[in-house]
Amino acid sequence: MNDVLGDWKRSHYCGQVTAVEVGREVCLMGWVQRRRDHGGLIFIDLRDREGVIQLALDPDRDPEAHGKADRVRNEFVVAIKGKVSPRPEGTVNPKMKTGEVEVEVSDLRILNTAKTPPFMLDEYTEVAENIRLKHRYLDLRRPAVQNNLMLRYQVTRTVRRYLDGQGFLDIETPVLTKSTPEGARDYLVPSRVNPGTFYALPQSPQLFKQLLMVSGFDRYFQIVRCFRDEDLRADRQPEFTQIDCEMSFVDRDDVIRVMEGMIATIFKEAIGVDVSLPMARMTYQEALARYGVDNPDLRFGLELVEISDLVASSGFKVFADAVGNGGMVKAINVKGGATLSRKELDELTEFVKIYGAKGLAWVKMTEEGWQSPIAKFFTADELAALNGRLDAQLGDLLLFVADSFRVTNEALGRLRGHLGQRLSLAKKDDYQFVWVTDFPLLEWDEEARRHVAVHHPFTAPMDEDVPLLTTDPGKARAKAYDLVLNGSEIGGGSIRIHDQAVQSQMFELMGIGEEEARVKFGFLLDALEFGAPPHGGIAFGLDRLTMILTGSESIRDVIAFPKTQKATCLMSEAPGVVDEKQLRELHIKLAVKPK
Amino acid sequence: MNDVLGDWKRSHYCGQVTAVEVGREVCLMGWVQRRRDHGGLIFIDLRDREGVIQLALDPDRDPEAHGKADRVRNEFVVAIKGKVSPRPEGTVNPKMKTGEVEVEVSDLRILNTAKTPPFMLDEYTEVAENIRLKHRYLDLRRPAVQNNLMLRYQVTRTVRRYLDGQGFLDIETPVLTKSTPEGARDYLVPSRVNPGTFYALPQSPQLFKQLLMVSGFDRYFQIVRCFRDEDLRADRQPEFTQIDCEMSFVDRDDVIRVMEGMIATIFKEAIGVDVSLPMARMTYQEALARYGVDNPDLRFGLELVEISDLVASSGFKVFADAVGNGGMVKAINVKGGATLSRKELDELTEFVKIYGAKGLAWVKMTEEGWQSPIAKFFTADELAALNGRLDAQLGDLLLFVADSFRVTNEALGRLRGHLGQRLSLAKKDDYQFVWVTDFPLLEWDEEARRHVAVHHPFTAPMDEDVPLLTTDPGKARAKAYDLVLNGSEIGGGSIRIHDQAVQSQMFELMGIGEEEARVKFGFLLDALEFGAPPHGGIAFGLDRLTMILTGSESIRDVIAFPKTQKATCLMSEAPGVVDEKQLRELHIKLAVKPK
Repeated sequence: MNDVLGDWKRSHYCGQVTAVEVGREVCLMGWVQRRRDHGGLIFIDLRDREGVIQLALDPDRDPEAHGKADRVRNEFVVAIKGKVSPRPEGTVNPKMKTGEVEVEVSDLRILNTAKTPPFMLDEYTEVAENIRLKHRYLDLRRPAVQNNLMLRYQVTRTVRRYLDGQGFLDIETPVLTKSTPEGARDYLVPSRVNPGTFYALPQSPQLFKQLLMVSGFDRYFQIVRCFRDEDLRADRQPEFTQIDCEMSFVDRDDVIRVMEGMIATIFKEAIGVDVSLPMARMTYQEALARYGVDNPDLRFGLELVEISDLVASSGFKVFADAVGNGGMVKAINVKGGATLSRKELDELTEFVKIYGAKGLAWVKMTEEGWQSPIAKFFTADELAALNGRLDAQLGDLLLFVADSFRVTNEALGRLRGHLGQRLSLAKKDDYQFVWVTDFPLLEWDEEARRHVAVHHPFTAPMDEDVPLLTTDPGKARAKAYDLVLNGSEIGGGSIRIHDQAVQSQMFELMGIGEEEARVKFGFLLDALEFGAPPHGGIAFGLDRLTMILTGSESIRDVIAFPKTQKATCLMSEAPGVVDEKQLRELHIKLAVKPK
Repeated sequence: MNDVLGDWKRSHYCGQVTAVEVGREVCLMGWVQRRRDHGGLIFIDLRDREGVIQLALDPDRDPEAHGKADRVRNEFVVAIKGKVSPRPEGTVNPKMKTGEVEVEVSDLRILNTAKTPPFMLDEYTEVAENIRLKHRYLDLRRPAVQNNLMLRYQVTRTVRRYLDGQGFLDIETPVLTKSTPEGARDYLVPSRVNPGTFYALPQSPQLFKQLLMVSGFDRYFQIVRCFRDEDLRADRQPEFTQIDCEMSFVDRDDVIRVMEGMIATIFKEAIGVDVSLPMARMTYQEALARYGVDNPDLRFGLELVEISDLVASSGFKVFADAVGNGGMVKAINVKGGATLSRKELDELTEFVKIYGAKGLAWVKMTEEGWQSPIAKFFTADELAALNGRLDAQLGDLLLFVADSFRVTNEALGRLRGHLGQRLSLAKKDDYQFVWVTDFPLLEWDEEARRHVAVHHPFTAPMDEDVPLLTTDPGKARAKAYDLVLNGSEIGGGSIRIHDQAVQSQMFELMGIGEEEARVKFGFLLDALEFGAPPHGGIAFGLDRLTMILTGSESIRDVIAFPKTQKATCLMSEAPGVVDEKQLRELHIKLAVKPK
């Protein structure tokens, strides 16, 4: 025997030892979750990834094993042999899978010892996240985190099986690729062999998957790591994982149909939720009009209502001017919200200011009608018309924003989302999907004085809008679609341009000259000339999808080894200082001294 | 209809239209492989990823479709509707899946045009590889390359299904990680947020997968991209893909058993080959003794035979001195090789010199006995003893190398491999697997004056050799194993050290001081103190495995977008020059001017 295990073979996972195993001899291996002494007996809760089982050690039955168990501490690694027995009357734990049984241990081996962990592992304890991340290998022992990662695996397994059944091929694309100046900031990798040049880590395999369509692979998918060197928000990571798909000879409806099926299968298999198909659809224009945002949470109403026409010539200058200046006035009706205190209303006003609104007008519907600082500016007819359109009833709270199109929608749309959470209108186990379509193709970048792509420069315009590219490009709509779930965009994609002339026109509209386009995207333009099929695709964010499925608050709870918001790994201490020799080989120098 | 496809939906892939579809109306979409005019009729071979189908266009049946077909050129993308018909007598092509039928086209749409490709796509043409790589999206249209990538997908699909059935969990590990000075050269990624520091791309997820075992995930796998910034040989790429596995509570035999099953399943499902299990095993010592190398090709004999004892006191000084200086003399018997010309023997001599041998002694077995420049140095008894041990028969060729242990084995072992190819002893469809075990744990690095790990610093010593770590570390064997197929190492792994004290001792033996070990591997040492289970694993090279399964000569034939031996992508022209602003943000400067 050349092993610490000798001839011992594990027979079951701890979590598998249930009542059907009573009478069986088992061999288990795992971690000591807890040890208790009880009238001479020792009880150990032994844990592995599948669950926890209670071990019982009786000094009379096996004094040697009992003696070893006496030395055992939390998180020791032990192997045991023993017989599965029903627990004595009154000690059954119906909350545990293994709660009807215990194992009467006849032999015990300590496979490894453990120092006392810096924090408790058996439940979520209030430990600072940086301590947990530093000892991530211990944090990952917590069943909640293990379950998240197991569910994540279940999702990818389901995705693979589903897409395989639909004829998709998993094809790997490069990680060491070329910097593309459109889009977010790239991570760069200096080349040793080609001095002065750099690879970039991909922000997505966009160009490669389009080229695979040009090659005739017809249906491609990949569950693939992508990289963006952006300042991190709470739900972002420097590296993240996409479920990336592309299909040939399809239009928008084909992509949507296949992907709806995938999402429904995931929800059914991962968390047992039935998603009814087809999913709802809504144009970008409608989403903005009714919800103020392009990722509406449809779990609750509280829709935005435009009242510009009713207030344009009112005596309330703030409203009238907003309309007069080409802006708009919109309102939401918070049913029963008249109970909010003045302090709460002030907080809501502060909230909308984050999004650029200059203020928030409010009205409480009382027995006496409008109770509001702005009531006096309106005539009785105007009040009646507003009440009518807003369906204002006794006890309601009306909230108004008057500003530009953009600010009004964003501020009031975000306020709607905020209130949905705060007033518990959004239920956690309610899953409301909606495809948002007909996005604008281009938007004007005031700073750069040019158009930029709303999705990316390879997105096709709607066929009927192609003439607009020449006459009024800002009005052209894209064959793009986002899948929104409960206010989060979980996926987005488009039909791509397969016509070289249209692609060139797009680059031109974006102020990318012919020569520049050739340098940056020459191989794509070439590829489009050699027989590109109509094609389109989509990408889903696996991290965010898993967050929603597991109900996690943080993206770091669904990634095995996540990075902090400063893009560091507290465990391995990456990124780190490297040798001078390594930099020399890469033909670079530091422009700063590392701290 | 807002799409070039209108309401057309593809009904079949081209390759699916076989005789059972006769009489059916079909809608097909694909690429024009060839167009021929034949007595007014136009025939088009239409291709998609599943195969090629013949289309027939009759000007009398549908003049409009015929007219469009007349404008069609090779690699145009077209959609057609038509009826499946049996081919006329005498035109059936039994070599094609679709060879019994053709489609009588009633409607045709040109979905996209194509310029004339720079090289022919319908078969392997003698085009310089750099042209093919520059237009990789066209090269990928060749059925041979498509089949390689489809088989690659089939392999990963099989691997995933098999490992899932064995309880392995796919868990993603970081790509932006920390530079580890042991091992090959790292690719580095400068950090913008943490000035002066760098991430490294992983050479393997070794430490992370061990930490996952410490966390209790029990069985981990990942099909994962790895990176090594080394000068490239023919079969290497800067980024490559590993099938990476790790298991807890196992010994060597457990890992080997599970992995044998995986490999056998792959061979059965991907290429229909039955692999008999269990596979052969051989110690490192035996492999060196019999084959001179640790990755022996067992498809043929031609074993190395040591004759040091027979020649140590012979009159041939070269042999006697080699033995006297602590070296050795070994020979191989090339059965029937006496027909080789002097020129061929000279070439073999040049071959062994590559591996450091000073020369190659040869003997042809003729009617008169030894015909050889060295015959005269041996007595009749010596000759008889040598003939006996080498089983020398009339017509055989004996080849001898006398040198140090290392040079003798490597030169003669490589010569054996070379002759196996050259004399066609190795059959392409013969798959001979062997596990090579009991590798040395450490080897002495003369230049660095310290021991280095043969596998990696986390490999466990054999239990019975642990005492040798103190007394004679160079003699200690490792719990390591390589899987060798037909002379190629396709996978390798080991049981890891789970005992913190042994891990510290290993670092010490490798001249890594306590402080240095703490800086570089502190989190691993910590993790080992908090309850690490016995664990071990393995990694297989997916690229090389796919090469063998597809019979490809080049690793670039099994990768969608490969890099050249100068680590460049000829299509995207990565790596490239980047903006000064990008470098400034990353706190680095160039030490050279880019060319």
